[in-house]
Amino acid sequence: MNGNTNLERERDQLVALAMQVIERRGAEISKAELASEAQLSRARIDQFFPEETDLFDAIVDQWFSPLVVIMEEVLASNLPPNRKMYEFFARRFLQQRDRFRADPAAFTLYCELGNQHWERVRSYVDLGDHYLSELIAQSQADGYFPGLKIDEALSLINQMVVSYTQPMLLIIIDERLSEAKLARIIDTVFAGLSATDRGAAVVTGLRVA
Amino acid sequence: MNGNTNLERERDQLVALAMQVIERRGAEISKAELASEAQLSRARIDQFFPEETDLFDAIVDQWFSPLVVIMEEVLASNLPPNRKMYEFFARRFLQQRDRFRADPAAFTLYCELGNQHWERVRSYVDLGDHYLSELIAQSQADGYFPGLKIDEALSLINQMVVSYTQPMLLIIIDERLSEAKLARIIDTVFAGLSATDRGAAVVTGLRVA
Repeated sequence: MNGNTNLERERDQLVALAMQVIERRGAEISKAELASEAQLSRARIDQFFPEETDLFDAIVDQWFSPLVVIMEEVLASNLPPNRKMYEFFARRFLQQRDRFRADPAAFTLYCELGNQHWERVRSYVDLGDHYLSELIAQSQADGYFPGLKIDEALSLINQMVVSYTQPMLLIIIDERLSEAKLARIIDTVFAGLSATDRGAAVVTGLRVA
Repeated sequence: MNGNTNLERERDQLVALAMQVIERRGAEISKAELASEAQLSRARIDQFFPEETDLFDAIVDQWFSPLVVIMEEVLASNLPPNRKMYEFFARRFLQQRDRFRADPAAFTLYCELGNQHWERVRSYVDLGDHYLSELIAQSQADGYFPGLKIDEALSLINQMVVSYTQPMLLIIIDERLSEAKLARIIDTVFAGLSATDRGAAVVTGLRVA
């Protein structure tokens, strides 16, 4: 068991080293390069990361684990649905913003790597959707979002708060984003989102004056 | 006057040629390169584009002019505020989506060039904000968005519909965007957006169960 813990610690150290190298070079690192940087044999690296993708997955895991902790804590809380949904987005936004402001270049690089390896990131985005669906179901039990299917509400809410979840937007419009604005958006969603057609779109098209 | 029209036509043809070259090469074009491509003297090119930035500005102008026409037509229409706001975003979204789907690589390239030369694009974004502010004022005259300053409503609405205005998001989540969803978002904004604090955020922080 102690041996297992030592292995885990060594693996964590290798992931941390890989991330340092990525940030220093501004590019991905292969297992061969990690072996050289760590002055370890390739066989030793293979013990920790059998496949090339295992190293990248470990870095992705490192990146997302604090966000997963936030989601699980919020879901487990006893707050009312609107408070839960605000915290669900606000706490992750603040965590991401801290990371971005601490090192904008590294943050931008990880976003680009995430975009390039979207299939390795997708399960975390799906997990976020899973938790948000649970929040939507709880909200609907309290009478919010009447008439909408969970998937419809999910897609609409994701779109309305995308400024606070999409890292690329954080990079572009950081100074326009705030917890106060996010709170107003969540309040707007809870006050106004429903399946009721209130007439913004009509089939007759635009009549110009 | 006829001479002037001929000059304008020649200038438009040079802009069109520059855009063809940009799309073919996947990179910007200089005035010197345009002269070579068009088999014209550098002096002739200078007549149309005195500064290097004038060529890029002409391309930006070409890109945005149909979007400006849409905004002006919608503003001049006699629709109610919620219908106007929907058309204001929906028509530009559809125009951008047509462009994207017709040639995803070229669309992505122009987005990247726009990001790199943000200062040349900014005036068009500011114009959009100007028109949206006018729509917000008209909406508030009808009782919508109570208590919010125009600039506050402007920023919140821009954030809630950013999926339909930010070209980079169109590239990433095209298949998740639709006019029906945009209509629900605009309906939600008109039903729910106000200065009233409905309690999504509270100062006491998250109490975990």
